[in-house]
Amino acid sequence: MAFEFHYQRLVHWQDTDAAGIIHFTNYFRYMEEAETQFHRSLDLAAFDLWKAEGIDWPRVSVSCDFVKPVTFGDQLDVHLWVAKKGRSSIGYEFSFKSKSQEVARGRLTMVFVKKDSEGVMRPVPAPQALLDRLEVAPFSAKD
Amino acid sequence: MAFEFHYQRLVHWQDTDAAGIIHFTNYFRYMEEAETQFHRSLDLAAFDLWKAEGIDWPRVSVSCDFVKPVTFGDQLDVHLWVAKKGRSSIGYEFSFKSKSQEVARGRLTMVFVKKDSEGVMRPVPAPQALLDRLEVAPFSAKD
Amino acid sequence: MAFEFHYQRLVHWQDTDAAGIIHFTNYFRYMEEAETQFHRSLDLAAFDLWKAEGIDWPRVSVSCDFVKPVTFGDQLDVHLWVAKKGRSSIGYEFSFKSKSQEVARGRLTMVFVKKDSEGVMRPVPAPQALLDRLEVAPFSAKD
Amino acid sequence: MAFEFHYQRLVHWQDTDAAGIIHFTNYFRYMEEAETQFHRSLDLAAFDLWKAEGIDWPRVSVSCDFVKPVTFGDQLDVHLWVAKKGRSSIGYEFSFKSKSQEVARGRLTMVFVKKDSEGVMRPVPAPQALLDRLEVAPFSAKD
Repeated sequence: MAFEFHYQRLVHWQDTDAAGIIHFTNYFRYMEEAETQFHRSLDLAAFDLWKAEGIDWPRVSVSCDFVKPVTFGDQLDVHLWVAKKGRSSIGYEFSFKSKSQEVARGRLTMVFVKKDSEGVMRPVPAPQALLDRLEVAPFSAKD
Repeated sequence: MAFEFHYQRLVHWQDTDAAGIIHFTNYFRYMEEAETQFHRSLDLAAFDLWKAEGIDWPRVSVSCDFVKPVTFGDQLDVHLWVAKKGRSSIGYEFSFKSKSQEVARGRLTMVFVKKDSEGVMRPVPAPQALLDRLEVAPFSAKD
Repeated sequence: MAFEFHYQRLVHWQDTDAAGIIHFTNYFRYMEEAETQFHRSLDLAAFDLWKAEGIDWPRVSVSCDFVKPVTFGDQLDVHLWVAKKGRSSIGYEFSFKSKSQEVARGRLTMVFVKKDSEGVMRPVPAPQALLDRLEVAPFSAKD
Repeated sequence: MAFEFHYQRLVHWQDTDAAGIIHFTNYFRYMEEAETQFHRSLDLAAFDLWKAEGIDWPRVSVSCDFVKPVTFGDQLDVHLWVAKKGRSSIGYEFSFKSKSQEVARGRLTMVFVKKDSEGVMRPVPAPQALLDRLEVAPFSAKD
């Protein structure tokens, strides 16, 4: 059972804006990259199965607080942990560090859905293979 | 004094992902576009002045809740309003509608900063020209 | 029969990079936006039909030359014209102007495809509704 | 002296579009990432120096041909090589492979510039540290 993951990410030129820092939208890209790498570390084949079953996992709520600016060429240390584990949803939290200092803090809740016969996305139970591998972290963003 | 703004935005192909819907990061792009258009509607020249004075306005906190999926070719009606007006920060809230139904709800807080002699961003008072034009909306996301 | 289209586009903050100018990848976003708006101006319903028929139109070749830098708040005038009209492909060319000066020149060739029974994308004839509405422009990027 | 570089890149969900494949604009992001990693492999400090000197290296011409679609979860092998080495410009070429098959081919020419006293970008000689480390590859995209 896993509850956290560390992901290293170089800040690229394309991630910056005219203020010379990361444009804030990119933190959400980093969160999703970390999530994907976390799932791959647990077993990508399981994920392929879900795709085969037509299950998607859109975000229902995301947020991020920005503490310090980060710029081109900086190395980000993204720490992801499982904050919530529901029947059909999972919540992740994220801490971003650069040069050992926290620079941002994020949250992301996803829900598992499947299109019904009219093409409307309906919540479905999370894949068992994922539930079997994940557990809620014994710490949180409040700590 | 202005407290709200409406912005129409077509959902482009590039905004979609493999689930056939808007990738969630794009809602933050739409929020920033609406903010820029709002400021332009109030007086772009004022904004140029700030740039001339070296003032930036990075985001310190953003969030978004996603209610219904939206796809390629849909027209988004973005409603922005002023939720907070501080000495050196402004908070906006956003409601996204498509086909008259709310599809997402967002929040964004920005702070006015200027680089000091060591290049560190420090909060500074919001430009008076902006404060003179903005007021807090007489309604909120809670309504 | 139509052979050209003009599209106005404000350069947003999110389009800039740390050099203070539009990051070059965004010109390709603008090209695709102009293409979509062109198709909408001709008859969006036709496009919906193609989607209903499972036809996609990926790009097979794109290029762009950058002449002058453009920055936040600039207004881009994107001029699109039909450069090639094949049985299953269409070629567009683009001239980008800001303040009446050409700032970039682009080209984009798309091909109409449909997934076969093994899920492999195969070229298919362009939808007749589109061919009926488009003609090659009587001028070109060389002029 | 170096003339080529290999860069591995996972295709992320955010890179896909509603056709279920990489949106073409992302190939240009991958090119720039590979360029940055190549420069880092040669000596990042040199790059910092240029930034300190106020030198930027915008793209003046880019292009890409797309051969096969690539999707979420695929691993891209990006091969970069030096195609041209001028006094104030450098040309890179790129071959993208997935599952040992070429899926795209790209080209990118950058020019070294510095803002003059009126803020206009003017070409300047490429930094000597870079010229000392780079040589033109003994092969090309035509091979």
